[in-house]
Amino acid sequence: MEGVKVARIDVFEDYGVSRSKNLARRGFGRERGNSVLLHPVEVAYLSTKGCSVYLNEKKLNITEILKWCFKKKENTLLFFVFSDLRNRGRKIKVEENFIVGNEIFVPISERDFVDFREIVGRKFNLAIVDEEGDVTYYKHSEWNCVGRHRENIKPFDGVFAGDRVLTCNKEIFEKFFYGSMNDGIVNLSLVEAVYLAEKGLLKLDVSNEKLKYTARQMEKKFEERYAVYRDLKDRGFVVKTGFKFGSDFRVYEKVENLRDLPHSKYLVKVAERIRASELASHVRVARAVRKKMVFCFDIKGLRYICIERIKV
Amino acid sequence: MEGVKVARIDVFEDYGVSRSKNLARRGFGRERGNSVLLHPVEVAYLSTKGCSVYLNEKKLNITEILKWCFKKKENTLLFFVFSDLRNRGRKIKVEENFIVGNEIFVPISERDFVDFREIVGRKFNLAIVDEEGDVTYYKHSEWNCVGRHRENIKPFDGVFAGDRVLTCNKEIFEKFFYGSMNDGIVNLSLVEAVYLAEKGLLKLDVSNEKLKYTARQMEKKFEERYAVYRDLKDRGFVVKTGFKFGSDFRVYEKVENLRDLPHSKYLVKVAERIRASELASHVRVARAVRKKMVFCFDIKGLRYICIERIKV
Repeated sequence: MEGVKVARIDVFEDYGVSRSKNLARRGFGRERGNSVLLHPVEVAYLSTKGCSVYLNEKKLNITEILKWCFKKKENTLLFFVFSDLRNRGRKIKVEENFIVGNEIFVPISERDFVDFREIVGRKFNLAIVDEEGDVTYYKHSEWNCVGRHRENIKPFDGVFAGDRVLTCNKEIFEKFFYGSMNDGIVNLSLVEAVYLAEKGLLKLDVSNEKLKYTARQMEKKFEERYAVYRDLKDRGFVVKTGFKFGSDFRVYEKVENLRDLPHSKYLVKVAERIRASELASHVRVARAVRKKMVFCFDIKGLRYICIERIKV
Repeated sequence: MEGVKVARIDVFEDYGVSRSKNLARRGFGRERGNSVLLHPVEVAYLSTKGCSVYLNEKKLNITEILKWCFKKKENTLLFFVFSDLRNRGRKIKVEENFIVGNEIFVPISERDFVDFREIVGRKFNLAIVDEEGDVTYYKHSEWNCVGRHRENIKPFDGVFAGDRVLTCNKEIFEKFFYGSMNDGIVNLSLVEAVYLAEKGLLKLDVSNEKLKYTARQMEKKFEERYAVYRDLKDRGFVVKTGFKFGSDFRVYEKVENLRDLPHSKYLVKVAERIRASELASHVRVARAVRKKMVFCFDIKGLRYICIERIKV
């Protein structure tokens, strides 16, 4: 940035002005006659790189420049994303509350909520700024995948044991990968039990209504989780609890047998909107276990969105 | 368990009876005259190991035995913990709602809440049973540690930037490890800024009251987090955000310089009570990064509890 250091910027109420065409060539500001108009965020960024900034012929120190730039609160997030992208060599501009280059980035504080209905289908990336000013980038896309699992289960007996169902039908675990097995006893989760009972495959000593009622008492979000579970099953996936990963489900495209268990490809969580910090942490966990993070954001329409971290 | 296979157990309303002294020698049940009285959970466990179980001279199949055992809902969690500990070779008994051996274990469903006030100081371990019937064990102890960090900060200027404070005082980061630094600008979190402003060290263009008011607007739990932050600082720790680990803070005993940054020893989260599933996931994350998990469960008394996973 040697060439920039000598540039002088004069600041006015809402923008900066420089006569250095060199800045424009480097992709800063917009040319207007003999001058280059700069966004406050560009001014603050350039000052950290050594540009001199003046107000009424008085040179400002960095604290004064930051004060001037952050009179508008919105500039804070823009500044972090702008600086980060510029430092990575991306040619970008500030346009209203977006950062625009080859792609569009929307700066979001980790304290903000992300509403999936509002972003799905829109052509921008999310740039989440954390408490320490670090920025991570995410792309999103509507998710509409199907599995290749088929099952053919014979009716069987189970015992309702308060918050789960136990059965001695080993095949349901070994062949169809429902539940988990210890000492020859298969432990079905409530969501699995309700699904199998409603299909008429699991015979219990309590009615399906009683089972579902208990599940609802036990789990606040049971209805939602169950609707998504059933949809994922109908799509041909093998669906297991995603609990250890902080999600609702983990999803396999197909399971032939347990000795040769494939890698589950997706984690699925039911959430219409989510705090940006939580979104970041879900995607981090999913990446760590080489899965993709999917949210069901519309229970009625059964619509899903896949969020992936991107490198910029 | 070959010797057990031949044992015959007759079951009655609330207990099982066997004449096999062999069972007693193996640590099952309580001797009463010529018989051994068995808890339903012991009966169910022994049946999975091949014991024959009878009701009125009729041999029961495993489904019938489980039905009998799980008439009482509480038996479900006891059964999972009992089976798991027995399979690991521990000699244990069921006593009311505890599993008792050399140590005492309290079975908890991952759906239950753990109230730290209720467990602190009590001599038992937690046995958390998850949706799949897996059991993990935790010990707990009151935590009352101190750090060895001293600091001597000169007053400095900062700029309030909406949801953080920025300053050009590099020393506050490089020497005292507050905030994070990019391009020569140090980003202080709200909690750090309020702390330094209240100490009279950080001079801002807004009053301390305005800063604190904004922090409260921004973060629901700000007051609680701040009280704990201040206490940890007063105890002589270096305190940084624990956000990336899903906690409130990560805590260093002492930081001499950043080039030689030591390992932070603890993660601290503010929570009076917490769902067992979340407790498990916090301890899992802490273990993964070789830290211990500490909860501040009493903001007024500033009391902490440390939860660690144990092998049994």
